[in-house]
Amino acid sequence: MERRHILGAAAAAAPAALATPALAQSLPEVRWRLQSSFPRVFDILFHTAERIGNRVAQLTDGKFRIQPFQAGEIVGGLQVLDAVQAGTIECGHTATYYFVGKDVSFAPFTALAFGLTARQQVAWFRHGGGNELLADLLKEYNAVGFSAGNTGAQMGGWFRNEVRSLQDLQGLKFRITGLAGQLFTRLGAAPVLTAPSDIYPSLERGVIDAAEFTGPHDDERGNYVRVARNYYAPGFWEPGANLHLIINQRAFAALPDLYKHALEMACLEADSEMISRYDHFNPLALRRLVGAGAQLRFWPREVLQAAWRANEEMIAELSGRNPRFKAIMDKYLPYRSDLFQWFRVAENSYDNFAFAAAQQRQ
Amino acid sequence: MERRHILGAAAAAAPAALATPALAQSLPEVRWRLQSSFPRVFDILFHTAERIGNRVAQLTDGKFRIQPFQAGEIVGGLQVLDAVQAGTIECGHTATYYFVGKDVSFAPFTALAFGLTARQQVAWFRHGGGNELLADLLKEYNAVGFSAGNTGAQMGGWFRNEVRSLQDLQGLKFRITGLAGQLFTRLGAAPVLTAPSDIYPSLERGVIDAAEFTGPHDDERGNYVRVARNYYAPGFWEPGANLHLIINQRAFAALPDLYKHALEMACLEADSEMISRYDHFNPLALRRLVGAGAQLRFWPREVLQAAWRANEEMIAELSGRNPRFKAIMDKYLPYRSDLFQWFRVAENSYDNFAFAAAQQRQ
Repeated sequence: MERRHILGAAAAAAPAALATPALAQSLPEVRWRLQSSFPRVFDILFHTAERIGNRVAQLTDGKFRIQPFQAGEIVGGLQVLDAVQAGTIECGHTATYYFVGKDVSFAPFTALAFGLTARQQVAWFRHGGGNELLADLLKEYNAVGFSAGNTGAQMGGWFRNEVRSLQDLQGLKFRITGLAGQLFTRLGAAPVLTAPSDIYPSLERGVIDAAEFTGPHDDERGNYVRVARNYYAPGFWEPGANLHLIINQRAFAALPDLYKHALEMACLEADSEMISRYDHFNPLALRRLVGAGAQLRFWPREVLQAAWRANEEMIAELSGRNPRFKAIMDKYLPYRSDLFQWFRVAENSYDNFAFAAAQQRQ
Repeated sequence: MERRHILGAAAAAAPAALATPALAQSLPEVRWRLQSSFPRVFDILFHTAERIGNRVAQLTDGKFRIQPFQAGEIVGGLQVLDAVQAGTIECGHTATYYFVGKDVSFAPFTALAFGLTARQQVAWFRHGGGNELLADLLKEYNAVGFSAGNTGAQMGGWFRNEVRSLQDLQGLKFRITGLAGQLFTRLGAAPVLTAPSDIYPSLERGVIDAAEFTGPHDDERGNYVRVARNYYAPGFWEPGANLHLIINQRAFAALPDLYKHALEMACLEADSEMISRYDHFNPLALRRLVGAGAQLRFWPREVLQAAWRANEEMIAELSGRNPRFKAIMDKYLPYRSDLFQWFRVAENSYDNFAFAAAQQRQ
């Protein structure tokens, strides 16, 4: 009955009597800078950095403040890991696969072609050993990391001409980055590194034949539909691109425990908030894009099958050259098999029937 | 440079200098009781209640403590809303669809046949108006609620005999609850209310012909495979069953803001923690179940199509009788159409290819 007594007292008291206590007197002031790898124009991506800061402040009575900066404000969007390692910034919101140039092992923590979906990625991080593998890797860069957002399955990009067969990919100048670029090289395409701001003019002038970015909500901002109408699905090389907050190890270790927990919780919120925004806004953007002339197309089966084989070969070759990548794949690939097998049973059989039935009904 | 200065000072200081401050002096002691609707034997479900309590304590320096109780310890698992409304307990972890007897409007916040999947449910709650609709409903029961976990798509249950057609459902004594029971009545089956502990003996003695519970991890504990080997997929009436923490409004209002935020964050964590555990453990349980003789089967298309039509009719009839349910459906159904349409494009086309390809590879 003692427990009830305490509630009774609290409920009976005027709410003002239990207003936020004077934490100001006991908690240290900490100010951090968070550099995003994304510019403000990609509002869902950049919003995550802002929201992490706001939530941490709320959970620490405003004593721990994290100011967000967009890509380029302190360092370039792709220099986030270097800046965190050097302590130039305390933390950065980024995709670890931007750093495959340092170590290809960074790739699977964001996305791998034909890899885990967004939801499966969470299971792998939390219960399949993913978080521990990433922690080992980041330790070498004086950093710790928390999962902080996912885009969901992305689109396969905008193509000036239809892709009817594998033949149509030969020599195709395709704006695509990282390991996915290497995969398309194996398929005969010619990957091109084009800065996001140059994609539109490059497509318009025919400097490139195709470009991939993320999904409808972000792609709409690039206006690519006006210069390359064939919009392909799915982006099989990013079935659930996961973002992380990467934190300087020394700065993190110096935080009071309460601030560490607050930061962890803020990143957890980012996980569900980012993907739920994409899930909410992508359908609306896709409808507008189709209204603006986008031709929604699916990859020919021949392309998917060739890409699957090429990807398996690529993973085997990279594993041969990089023992850490091999050690990660030795855990990741069987985990993928287990999850894919189960997801076919209930989730996928449900989706296949229900998604189609709802459309027939309209 | 001021920002950097503060980090510099923090990083240079010995960690002990920034140890957790003496919050004990400024935060009030609050003790709550949390009654789960689930018994401890369903470890993933019950774990959520424990974890919410632990996390809240961690975020409040141990000043706000929530003690978890399993179903029946204070009140019965299905009396959670009554107990919260009366203030007998401060909060309960439950599925709102247990309360369709009070108002059928409670159903869609847990699950609706052919409704939103787990991930889509989150988008609806946060950005599609779902949270606001539930808040309006709970207000009438002196309660507030936070989403706190999801099982993912469930299985369709254990059947003594194969279901080859709609004909095989006629008169079938099927242990299934709530609105889904009404749906199966429309399909010609005879739903039976069987307490979880009675499912096994009832199947064994032929008192019932079939029983559904949740998915492989939970179903394995019931040992149903020994008495009804046909295991059907998917549980189309629970494509993403969502749990909630339901809180007495007056108790919640009396909390300091910091405790309110801590509780909200703990529920957010439950959202990703519960489903990631199911995603991790279900594949392992399914493999053991198949090893123990489970025959994995999919519903005949005829059954799915008849169920879709019956469900549409049921929603229309319930909407005609209950203006609140109608108002919710008027928002839910178009939202479902939008999300299903988009999920077909990238997510489902990816899943269909990749899940099958991975299995062929083995």
